[in-house]
Amino acid sequence: MEVGSAKPWPVTLKAKMEDFGRSIKKVGEDDPRRVIHSLKVGFALTLVSIFYYYQPLYQSFGVSAMWAVMTVVVVFEFSVGATLGKGLNRVMATLLAGALGVGAHHLADLTGHIGEPILLGTFVFLQAVTATFIRFFPKVKARYDYGILVFILTFTLVSVSGFRVDEIIEFAHKRLSTILIGGSACVIIAIFVYPVWAGQDLHNLIAFNLEKLGNFLEGFGDEYFKVPEDEEESEDQGSFMQAYKSVLNSKSNEESLANFARWEPGHGRFQFGHPWKQYLKVGNLTRQCAYRIEALYGYLNDDIKASVDVRSKIEEACTKVSIESGRALKELSMAIKSMTYPISAHKHIHNAKMAANNIKSLLKSSPWEKIELLQVIPLVTVASLLIDVVNCTEEIAESVCELASKARFKKVDCLGVSPETLRNVKSPRHADDHKHHLVISVDDNSSAPKISDYK
Amino acid sequence: MEVGSAKPWPVTLKAKMEDFGRSIKKVGEDDPRRVIHSLKVGFALTLVSIFYYYQPLYQSFGVSAMWAVMTVVVVFEFSVGATLGKGLNRVMATLLAGALGVGAHHLADLTGHIGEPILLGTFVFLQAVTATFIRFFPKVKARYDYGILVFILTFTLVSVSGFRVDEIIEFAHKRLSTILIGGSACVIIAIFVYPVWAGQDLHNLIAFNLEKLGNFLEGFGDEYFKVPEDEEESEDQGSFMQAYKSVLNSKSNEESLANFARWEPGHGRFQFGHPWKQYLKVGNLTRQCAYRIEALYGYLNDDIKASVDVRSKIEEACTKVSIESGRALKELSMAIKSMTYPISAHKHIHNAKMAANNIKSLLKSSPWEKIELLQVIPLVTVASLLIDVVNCTEEIAESVCELASKARFKKVDCLGVSPETLRNVKSPRHADDHKHHLVISVDDNSSAPKISDYK
Repeated sequence: MEVGSAKPWPVTLKAKMEDFGRSIKKVGEDDPRRVIHSLKVGFALTLVSIFYYYQPLYQSFGVSAMWAVMTVVVVFEFSVGATLGKGLNRVMATLLAGALGVGAHHLADLTGHIGEPILLGTFVFLQAVTATFIRFFPKVKARYDYGILVFILTFTLVSVSGFRVDEIIEFAHKRLSTILIGGSACVIIAIFVYPVWAGQDLHNLIAFNLEKLGNFLEGFGDEYFKVPEDEEESEDQGSFMQAYKSVLNSKSNEESLANFARWEPGHGRFQFGHPWKQYLKVGNLTRQCAYRIEALYGYLNDDIKASVDVRSKIEEACTKVSIESGRALKELSMAIKSMTYPISAHKHIHNAKMAANNIKSLLKSSPWEKIELLQVIPLVTVASLLIDVVNCTEEIAESVCELASKARFKKVDCLGVSPETLRNVKSPRHADDHKHHLVISVDDNSSAPKISDYK
Repeated sequence: MEVGSAKPWPVTLKAKMEDFGRSIKKVGEDDPRRVIHSLKVGFALTLVSIFYYYQPLYQSFGVSAMWAVMTVVVVFEFSVGATLGKGLNRVMATLLAGALGVGAHHLADLTGHIGEPILLGTFVFLQAVTATFIRFFPKVKARYDYGILVFILTFTLVSVSGFRVDEIIEFAHKRLSTILIGGSACVIIAIFVYPVWAGQDLHNLIAFNLEKLGNFLEGFGDEYFKVPEDEEESEDQGSFMQAYKSVLNSKSNEESLANFARWEPGHGRFQFGHPWKQYLKVGNLTRQCAYRIEALYGYLNDDIKASVDVRSKIEEACTKVSIESGRALKELSMAIKSMTYPISAHKHIHNAKMAANNIKSLLKSSPWEKIELLQVIPLVTVASLLIDVVNCTEEIAESVCELASKARFKKVDCLGVSPETLRNVKSPRHADDHKHHLVISVDDNSSAPKISDYK
């Protein structure tokens, strides 16, 4: 619309409108539940505003009906857990702060006309300072932040309004009951009309992240060792291979979903006491694996790799490690999705380990001595990172097994075999002395028994 | 307090109280500004509740004074940017939604007593659905989420209250003016009483993250190559070496600080239009470097490393690379902190590059051929990762230079030398052919001129 711009404004306006249309479509297509959620909010709000229209209801609540509207607008969140968490926070905080506010008001009342505002002001100041400070506690912030906000608000309004409104109990009572009505409307609609469960979302996110890493690893071997002649498809492949990058920064998302999930009642196959924390552990290990993959990705884009004959020596073993650990991760992902024990993953982990040992013995064999060390560095680093990835995969598998047992997935021996069997999956003897070079430490606080600890 | 618990309840209660006391102290000590913020909120809230106490003010605003209290409780955030952002969102949304609500009310008024609630209900439903959907747009969510919430709330309240209150314009006017009063109180106190600037925090966070990585790298060489005899101090060292881990997950924190910073007026040395986005670029590159360091950290905890005589060959060069890139990062951190051009960083980057080339030539020299390849893999991987880190460091340096120029730090030639000079810092000739093996690609969208592109 600027004067002197290259195109006349109706054209740019049209282009902008089309852009806007596309982005609307994209937001809706990315997650169609967003459209349903919007309709649900509209429905809840219209329902609650009946309080204003319908004479008998209005007569009993009056202007307080406004609180029902406010509650719906503020409390109705995307997932059931978030809605329920906010709703409970709001109700409990209103109850507590209302009671304390009434108490503060009565106490101040005793001090006479001059002392009352001073005492009330002191109360308001002290509770605001204390409550605001408590909001900084990490545990409180994660679960009760909104409750404390409502506490400050309600305490201030109730104790201070009391200075004017004589029927302070009635005021507090009306506020509480309208909030209850608004909150119930939100919770009932959130739970019974196309519910979005944060727990289900967390479950899917964890499974999906594992799948992304699995896809990368399945493709990595071929991508890394392919002869660089078909340049055209590489860009297309590039975006496919970059899907794993979102895993690197999924921590905060996982944590907030887990916080919401803990508010949710049992639903579907997620019963009360579902081990949401274990999902976070799996998620952390998945990220550890993603960091290794990020390092691998760097080597993928090297223009000039070790010469073909050097590569061909360990190409097969490396590709095998990559594909097998990729398949193991995808099996683990499938197991989470279908809520069964990851029976077939152990086979792929076993294969990946055998291939990893194979790499080690290949690296140990003599032909390498004639080759310049410098020339094989990238290749050796890639091999080493892949062996790291196998270890990560094994830790993830253990963690998923722990999840399977805690969440009572269908019971078979974990990984389909006993830990003893896995311990016997040792490296070929001649590589034995060095295999622990390649075990890396992972920063999780899991106290799970480590079946990878097979020294 | 459970029956049959090991200790009598007064003892456990005392222990819990002590725990609680310690955590209060910790929250306050971690950031003393939290205490000040709590006092500021208490002060603002007490100030605004004067509206209820002071008769002349109460007469002009009546119950609407409540909105001032609500505004203070909801809008007052920790940083100036967040407070200002929420305040502006609230005022603008109230203004817009108020106007539209009045319009909707008048329109519905024309349709008579039966049509009015139906039309109003339709309006409420449609605006709630549309606005809720718009909240899902990522760009809107980042900056205007709260505004849209207030829009839905105000539109619903104004249009629906209009059904009862005849003086709807007055209602909207009172709500707006009390919100303005509450919002101004927040903003004025946030800005003039010990202000917490989100921009300053982002600035410090970016510098501090660079320093953490620098500290790790400075210590890495000694830690990795040290002869494992003094077991006791390793735990202490461990926590020191793990400080970098917080960098891995700092993305969401950086992004929200940058969003808040954009609301802030010029202050101190941060003028209007300060390049906050460039901080995010530096932050992204810092994280790329942290991923490499995460991989390095894995090798740090290997129990059995390559035998001493193998290690000693490249110990000096690796330690030098590590220390010099660590120093470079710390210089960059210092430059950001002091808002000057990173003059002395180039020297360390130059040294690190020379040492990296030294590693390459050492790896190329003959004595290695007598050593088993498998035995040196961890060492070679560490060397390769360190060379990656040098490249990362260089990219970070470029990005910091770009920041320095965009934010108009004190002007000298960037890095103290021209890009041409840096291009001439080449590897020794005999390592020339292979050095680009070790350049990794980094996923940033920076269009900055790459001085590392020294082929």
